[in-house]
Amino acid sequence: MFRPEIKVIDCTVRDGGLMNKWQFDDKFVRAVYQGLSEAGVDYMEIGYLSSESAFCRTEVGPWKFCAEDDLLRIIGESEKKIKFSAMADIGRIDYNDIRPQKESVLDMVRVACYVHQIDKAIALAHHCQDKGYETTINLMAVSTVGPRELEEGLDDLAKSRVPIIYLVDSFGAFYQEDIELLAKLYMERLPGKTIGIHAHNNQQLAFANTISSVICGINYLDATLYGMGRGAGNCPTELLLSFLKNPKFNVRPLIKVIEEEILPWREKIDWGYFIPYMVGGVMNQHPKAAMACMESDKKNLITEFYDQMTSAAAI
Amino acid sequence: MFRPEIKVIDCTVRDGGLMNKWQFDDKFVRAVYQGLSEAGVDYMEIGYLSSESAFCRTEVGPWKFCAEDDLLRIIGESEKKIKFSAMADIGRIDYNDIRPQKESVLDMVRVACYVHQIDKAIALAHHCQDKGYETTINLMAVSTVGPRELEEGLDDLAKSRVPIIYLVDSFGAFYQEDIELLAKLYMERLPGKTIGIHAHNNQQLAFANTISSVICGINYLDATLYGMGRGAGNCPTELLLSFLKNPKFNVRPLIKVIEEEILPWREKIDWGYFIPYMVGGVMNQHPKAAMACMESDKKNLITEFYDQMTSAAAI
Repeated sequence: MFRPEIKVIDCTVRDGGLMNKWQFDDKFVRAVYQGLSEAGVDYMEIGYLSSESAFCRTEVGPWKFCAEDDLLRIIGESEKKIKFSAMADIGRIDYNDIRPQKESVLDMVRVACYVHQIDKAIALAHHCQDKGYETTINLMAVSTVGPRELEEGLDDLAKSRVPIIYLVDSFGAFYQEDIELLAKLYMERLPGKTIGIHAHNNQQLAFANTISSVICGINYLDATLYGMGRGAGNCPTELLLSFLKNPKFNVRPLIKVIEEEILPWREKIDWGYFIPYMVGGVMNQHPKAAMACMESDKKNLITEFYDQMTSAAAI
Repeated sequence: MFRPEIKVIDCTVRDGGLMNKWQFDDKFVRAVYQGLSEAGVDYMEIGYLSSESAFCRTEVGPWKFCAEDDLLRIIGESEKKIKFSAMADIGRIDYNDIRPQKESVLDMVRVACYVHQIDKAIALAHHCQDKGYETTINLMAVSTVGPRELEEGLDDLAKSRVPIIYLVDSFGAFYQEDIELLAKLYMERLPGKTIGIHAHNNQQLAFANTISSVICGINYLDATLYGMGRGAGNCPTELLLSFLKNPKFNVRPLIKVIEEEILPWREKIDWGYFIPYMVGGVMNQHPKAAMACMESDKKNLITEFYDQMTSAAAI
């Protein structure tokens, strides 16, 4: 599948950081940066754009802030061949903390929001656009939003100047059929805009749903190295690049950085297909309950977790 | 997705046994049997049907043979509510070793073959049918078969009395688009026959490709508990039953047997998504090279494996 409009955004540091509070050292981030650059990936989402007042630096690593000095240290003397993206959450970034794009190595700001925050997300995205950034709005947890509310939200987004809108399967609940239906709806309701996909792997469908998205005409594709990301993780970048078969992509640098930097993390933290995440995906639930189970000493007591989740749903 | 014709065949003992030479104790096999029965799964593929002369019992466990006494010991006093299936490989079973179905608790024999063995497979399947068994032919490694040869093979199968023919993605190389194309071809060339799917998970697509198969009208669906199977493993039974949402299915007994019997094996052997299996899938190669890598002390040297595989392909 080759289409020149397709862009791949690797979110390893940003989404993977949700599993370790962004405690990646510079060696890790630099290796990811170099690997993605050599592989021809279009964007590296290097973290969240947050105000220093919103979080404590002793608790979260530098990639929760994406301060300019930290970004520059990763680039070093090299010529920057990949675009940098950072995600901004509503309420965790002060408008005044966003410097003009001309004074930053950051190229894109992606605003994450729930459906009830769309107005605030548009305002923040417009602010970033006016400062010179590429922008997207990533509408999260769409699997829990009813059709009337979703169509209203999409209509509001259609009226905005934000050029790229993401379909986000936050809970890993979607099957291919959901993707097809929603991709069609997004395209109808958002004429002239580019659509993106961000999938989670609770049901081992993140890659498959990303392929379905490509077939439906979605052009901005999120992925992470070896699927590293919150809970069950994401669409693996190495699988996505192998599928896309665009001559500009090269898988080998990804394999190398997985070997050197991702596999050691795989020994320390559990993302990927585990039954608690699977149950959460099937039940269309936020992964926090499954993550708490996985971090506890009850991680293998999956029948107990299943019973808790299904009885809670029945109440 | 509900369709009464759909049947689920759990192959945990048979395909999972390829990872440990069928060294499952009775407690394991009985727990799988009881879990699948309670879950409403239609068939349990409990192993291979082989002649005792073809393999040594000290090297492979009892499920390489499926001797009647072993099967009866698993059932014990319980009422058998699930059908038993066994796989037969061409050349490893003597016709005389197959007892009449009336004298066996085995319900179905599935004959696995490569495209050049179709004539022999039909003869063996007919022999089993004449002895009273349900039969299928599972045409393996279709991803390596050219279109002319495949159509000729399918035409031969169409003329046979074998009612169920399987599309087998032995190398985990297929995308959803391949499944759609092949499902259509199988249905056109095999009028009146039931089609089955057996997928491998090298590219995290086994479940997705099984869903695509269901949408295309394929009705016999292979899966294994927690995906346990050769190399990257298979479509996970717990995901498949959750998707099918047929009221006859119940996921909880599967979660319980995964907790009690499969997770301990997960500590001992590596099936699932690993880069060597992924590379094999992308390159449409037999998993033996990746399995050798995974069993060696070089299992994490994935760049070296990638280089070997890609340079071998270039020669």
